[in-house]
Amino acid sequence: MSTLETSAPASAPEPAPAATGSATGSPTAAVDATGAVDPATAAASSVPSAPVPDDITVDVTALGEQLLGRWADARRHSRELVARPEFQRLPHLGMDEHRERVLGQLKLLVENGSVHRAFPKSVGGQEDNGGNIASFEELVLGDPSMQIKSGVQWGLFAAAIQHLGTDEHHQRWLPDALGLALPGAFAMTETGHGSDVSAIGTTATYDPATDEWVIHTPFRAAWKDYLGNAALHGRAAVVFAQLITRNVNHGVHAFFVPLRDETGAFLPGVGGEDDGLKGGLNGIDNGRLHFTNVRVPRTNLLNRYGDVDENGVYTSPIASPGRRFFTMLGTLVQGRVSLDGAATVASKLALTIAIRYGSERRQFDGADGEVVLMDYQRHQRRLLPRLAQTYAMSFAHEVFLEKFDAVFSGAADTDADREDLETLAAALKPLSTWAALDIIQEAREACGGQGFLAENRLVQLRADMDIYATFEGDNNVLLQLVAKRLLTDYSRAFAKADAGVMAHYVADQVEEAVVNRSGLRRLAQSVVDFGSTARSVGYVRDTAAQRQLLTDRVETMVAELAGKLRSASKLPRDEAAALFNRHQNALIETARAHGELLQWEAFTQALEHVEHAGTRQVLTWLRDLFGLGLIEKNLAWYVIHGRLSDHRAQAITDYIDDRLLPRLRPHALALTDAFLLRDEHIRAEIATGVERERQEEARAYYADLAARGLAPIDEKDLIAAKKARR
Amino acid sequence: MSTLETSAPASAPEPAPAATGSATGSPTAAVDATGAVDPATAAASSVPSAPVPDDITVDVTALGEQLLGRWADARRHSRELVARPEFQRLPHLGMDEHRERVLGQLKLLVENGSVHRAFPKSVGGQEDNGGNIASFEELVLGDPSMQIKSGVQWGLFAAAIQHLGTDEHHQRWLPDALGLALPGAFAMTETGHGSDVSAIGTTATYDPATDEWVIHTPFRAAWKDYLGNAALHGRAAVVFAQLITRNVNHGVHAFFVPLRDETGAFLPGVGGEDDGLKGGLNGIDNGRLHFTNVRVPRTNLLNRYGDVDENGVYTSPIASPGRRFFTMLGTLVQGRVSLDGAATVASKLALTIAIRYGSERRQFDGADGEVVLMDYQRHQRRLLPRLAQTYAMSFAHEVFLEKFDAVFSGAADTDADREDLETLAAALKPLSTWAALDIIQEAREACGGQGFLAENRLVQLRADMDIYATFEGDNNVLLQLVAKRLLTDYSRAFAKADAGVMAHYVADQVEEAVVNRSGLRRLAQSVVDFGSTARSVGYVRDTAAQRQLLTDRVETMVAELAGKLRSASKLPRDEAAALFNRHQNALIETARAHGELLQWEAFTQALEHVEHAGTRQVLTWLRDLFGLGLIEKNLAWYVIHGRLSDHRAQAITDYIDDRLLPRLRPHALALTDAFLLRDEHIRAEIATGVERERQEEARAYYADLAARGLAPIDEKDLIAAKKARR
Repeated sequence: MSTLETSAPASAPEPAPAATGSATGSPTAAVDATGAVDPATAAASSVPSAPVPDDITVDVTALGEQLLGRWADARRHSRELVARPEFQRLPHLGMDEHRERVLGQLKLLVENGSVHRAFPKSVGGQEDNGGNIASFEELVLGDPSMQIKSGVQWGLFAAAIQHLGTDEHHQRWLPDALGLALPGAFAMTETGHGSDVSAIGTTATYDPATDEWVIHTPFRAAWKDYLGNAALHGRAAVVFAQLITRNVNHGVHAFFVPLRDETGAFLPGVGGEDDGLKGGLNGIDNGRLHFTNVRVPRTNLLNRYGDVDENGVYTSPIASPGRRFFTMLGTLVQGRVSLDGAATVASKLALTIAIRYGSERRQFDGADGEVVLMDYQRHQRRLLPRLAQTYAMSFAHEVFLEKFDAVFSGAADTDADREDLETLAAALKPLSTWAALDIIQEAREACGGQGFLAENRLVQLRADMDIYATFEGDNNVLLQLVAKRLLTDYSRAFAKADAGVMAHYVADQVEEAVVNRSGLRRLAQSVVDFGSTARSVGYVRDTAAQRQLLTDRVETMVAELAGKLRSASKLPRDEAAALFNRHQNALIETARAHGELLQWEAFTQALEHVEHAGTRQVLTWLRDLFGLGLIEKNLAWYVIHGRLSDHRAQAITDYIDDRLLPRLRPHALALTDAFLLRDEHIRAEIATGVERERQEEARAYYADLAARGLAPIDEKDLIAAKKARR
Repeated sequence: MSTLETSAPASAPEPAPAATGSATGSPTAAVDATGAVDPATAAASSVPSAPVPDDITVDVTALGEQLLGRWADARRHSRELVARPEFQRLPHLGMDEHRERVLGQLKLLVENGSVHRAFPKSVGGQEDNGGNIASFEELVLGDPSMQIKSGVQWGLFAAAIQHLGTDEHHQRWLPDALGLALPGAFAMTETGHGSDVSAIGTTATYDPATDEWVIHTPFRAAWKDYLGNAALHGRAAVVFAQLITRNVNHGVHAFFVPLRDETGAFLPGVGGEDDGLKGGLNGIDNGRLHFTNVRVPRTNLLNRYGDVDENGVYTSPIASPGRRFFTMLGTLVQGRVSLDGAATVASKLALTIAIRYGSERRQFDGADGEVVLMDYQRHQRRLLPRLAQTYAMSFAHEVFLEKFDAVFSGAADTDADREDLETLAAALKPLSTWAALDIIQEAREACGGQGFLAENRLVQLRADMDIYATFEGDNNVLLQLVAKRLLTDYSRAFAKADAGVMAHYVADQVEEAVVNRSGLRRLAQSVVDFGSTARSVGYVRDTAAQRQLLTDRVETMVAELAGKLRSASKLPRDEAAALFNRHQNALIETARAHGELLQWEAFTQALEHVEHAGTRQVLTWLRDLFGLGLIEKNLAWYVIHGRLSDHRAQAITDYIDDRLLPRLRPHALALTDAFLLRDEHIRAEIATGVERERQEEARAYYADLAARGLAPIDEKDLIAAKKARR
């Protein structure tokens, strides 16, 4: 296991109230076990408990406050802004108009005091890192283009000056960057190199004759690409380039490079192109840049982690070029933090729309005409697990944001803290950005044709969120980083272990293999459960059992991978790379399992802070739906590895379908209400109650016809009546 | 099992050559068993075979021809057209310009003789139903809006006149409809009722005093909605309404209703709204329509399946109102056929783009600089199974199209044939339209930032295909229809069965339960395989074993559902509906499993028609990847139900990762080349070889620097050298 703090020990006290009821229909047949459990004996410790009250309610206000989290005020500030029309997307705008509108919105953000939070007090900021990210994330409710263009200007361009530059740079450029007098681009990615930043081709060569840097793009693949603010609005850029002085390449560093003059024309040696129309985020002027021997003063090097003197002598506080590089990149982690949060906000919005509509829309009316879409099991299966996932993402993001704030405020800022933060970012950002796409799409389909109309927002929201999966670190690449960290932690643990521990580990592995091959462990569970579905359910829905199953899977996957990759260190580089490549898919799946465990732990921790009994009960069911959903998704693994008997495995799906979905369904609306999104934030015609009004009008029409004796007879009834007369 | 013809019997001869090689590295350790097999004994029948030759090639031309299928000429005709710029989408067009352009493209299609194929010879058609659909599907390569607007005009509006009207209607309206002098809407869906057509609110009441129909929209929910051609271009519509005469409602019928005058203004009593911007397909003017006591002549009823005389007396060749309704809807199945085909064409396009780019793009270069994205296992895992799926979709679509043509040409047109066709449509359209979204999205992400640019087409293609999942029948609703058909077939089989068969069935079920609980069957497999991965693999990759596993799962799921739902017929309607609802998710998953089996069977049948040995070998691996992928996706089911031992289950994933992906990787480009898409069809900048050129330029630059002694020394090398000197 990794050392990330969200992984609570398996012996943590049971935080949730006992879930009640059973899969057999008897209200007293099964309950949760508590405390740490052995999978083989957990069900045996079950004892009866009280039946579920029918009148459980959710305290929407309190839950809403909990979801807003520590930086609730910053979130409320942004939500007030985006409730105003001028901060909202106009769906019909073409690319050019959309870009102008978003630029205008950035100016309004400045005027409303929304952009200084994270910056040094010396330039008028508040040094409030957590609040800054929280407030930016909420901008996605107005227009994701506004969120991301803000991110380019203040989270990347200005933040690079802040974190990679020194005080002189702050004083020189930050006031204008913050006030938007100086719109800027963050010129890191090149056409030829995205995730692999260390291999970029742009060079910055020191010329002692003039005391200048020569910024140069040696070939087409080294053009900077996909840069927000590059196509139109950027007056300067932070350009990442290979720092070369005295014929030594010291690796990638950042340089402040002016791009355009007062008229908006490129300065000499600077050129570029517009990236043009994109799949979404068309309010941002992404573009390409290239430099032909562009000269900037030596002091334009953002020199916090590396500097060059007048003689061209390079110095750095970090001796290792590798560590230096990762430290520099690490200061920019906030992009990933804010994408994780924005993806969560977008998911909340999409589910609010779909669940509101699904709670009103009728189709294939039942006999009593009272069945709405949300009453269908399939609709519940489509939306409720995604609601559970969104809660997990929200709680996990809060943990993530706390960690980020602790590191960036200096409260907990060791190398280990930074490493943990980066691993957390690399684990959570992929899961939440992929989940957002999945959630918005399912919400769109759940709203049918209505979901496809721009007026209901889901399609444009999804189009905008699409790129979140591959920018600020491609999701697959990030998960590989997580896997490598897990393997490193694992091998560190073994480096410290004495021979006895190793022997024990090997014995465990062997025993495991024996158990698996004979199916004995599963057989033992079957015997304990005695074929009782209630007992099987009692086991799997228990918090400690969920934790054990989820944790055990991560640990086992890491151990298995470590075993398979153990020989890599002794192999030539090519063969080692080939060995890793043969397990690349497993590496990524392991990282995903780890990230999901982090989300589950955050959700479980959050349950401890719920005071209201009804809310706690409903949220516990929702957490169970999330946890059991993860186990169900990987059920084959649990069965093959002897962690779950067939009976328990089957009980998981049955418990979700027969118990959790029906229990949660009455609370679906309340659980979206707790996102505290107002109509001005939702802005989807179908989420306004219009569907209910239309249905009431239709029902009133038919009732009136019937009352006045004007309703035509149905041919089917006529046929039935004729048959009856015969 | 259903009676659909694509389900070949389990005893069919083994069509594919023996796959060779093994998971242990020994080339002779395992081979396919042939013929029908018992899962417990299959591996035991394995015998050694020859090793795999290294020089396998794919005959791209022959495979391409096979993929084009029976209606290759019709497809080629369309591909020639869409290779011309005037038939292609311009990415930057706003909604209004896009709509005009697509209308113009429809006129060009008329001029190029592309729209008459399906229609009666009496109006200048060719009565070539299969060729007509094949040619329309390919239009998606030019612009999906053009495909769907064509579908509205000729596949829905004109086709409804053809299939629901009679000869007089054909002569009166088809020539203008075909020639686009009469653009029309297909006014079935209402805001209040999409999939549930029988419940629409629009009424057509016969007035004997004037011998007219009064078409009326009684309330807002009964507005016709989402109709192509309704917002702007439609001059008339086929309006579906409740036919009421002599105070009896005879159910939904279709009426020809003029909408607009020569100037484009609505006729008296007709009104409407523009649906506005959508998530995609913005080249189509979708809109809403409503009617206030609009009068049309009695003969405007499309009267093939129901007519009313001057006295208001209703007659129909189909006595049952239910059967009549489904017969009328059934004539419109071609929409689903063409969506299945268009989704397949779009998937081919997306994979061609992503695999071409992935075969050139380098990232995190290996030591020799030769590693491209497609060499990474994860990239293979992302794209190759989707390539296999696309082949399965393509072959299954050809079977589907053959069936459609046979029914509509009258060659095989019994009620049973029509029922089978509709079930096939309901099974395949959901799978392929969902798959297209998944495939295009994965292709987009696999191309990173490039994938997000409109110039590389993937994002707009996905946006356009989005609605395919919920129009022409919501995918979830369609799959329920399939499940109900499977259950009906199942209960029919039992209705005919004698008591002996029933007893045998029950005994089987009991035995199954016993076997599962004790894990004995799995244990038996383990004993047979003797812990040998090679033997396990030899079993699961065998064609007959794949067929047995896939078929068995469908059959078992149907039988289990039938058992659970058996009591429904004896329950009051509400309780029966509730019982069905408790198993709705399982119903849909069963239908999906059935559809996947159909795809697998079609792929397997197609292997028989491959002459070229290399092609056959590669395609067999691809089919194995598809089949084993389906089994892997549902691995928990197979293990829990005792169909696969742990060892065999694990062998499936290992075989995919260690054997199939590496074997297929060298053929990935050839397998997309066989789609025979030309550059004019692909039109994605990143699929043109530009990435390779950029990389060669970069390499040449660095090589030149090195040759001239101008390359700077890397700081890391400097440090290493210093250490070495110490």
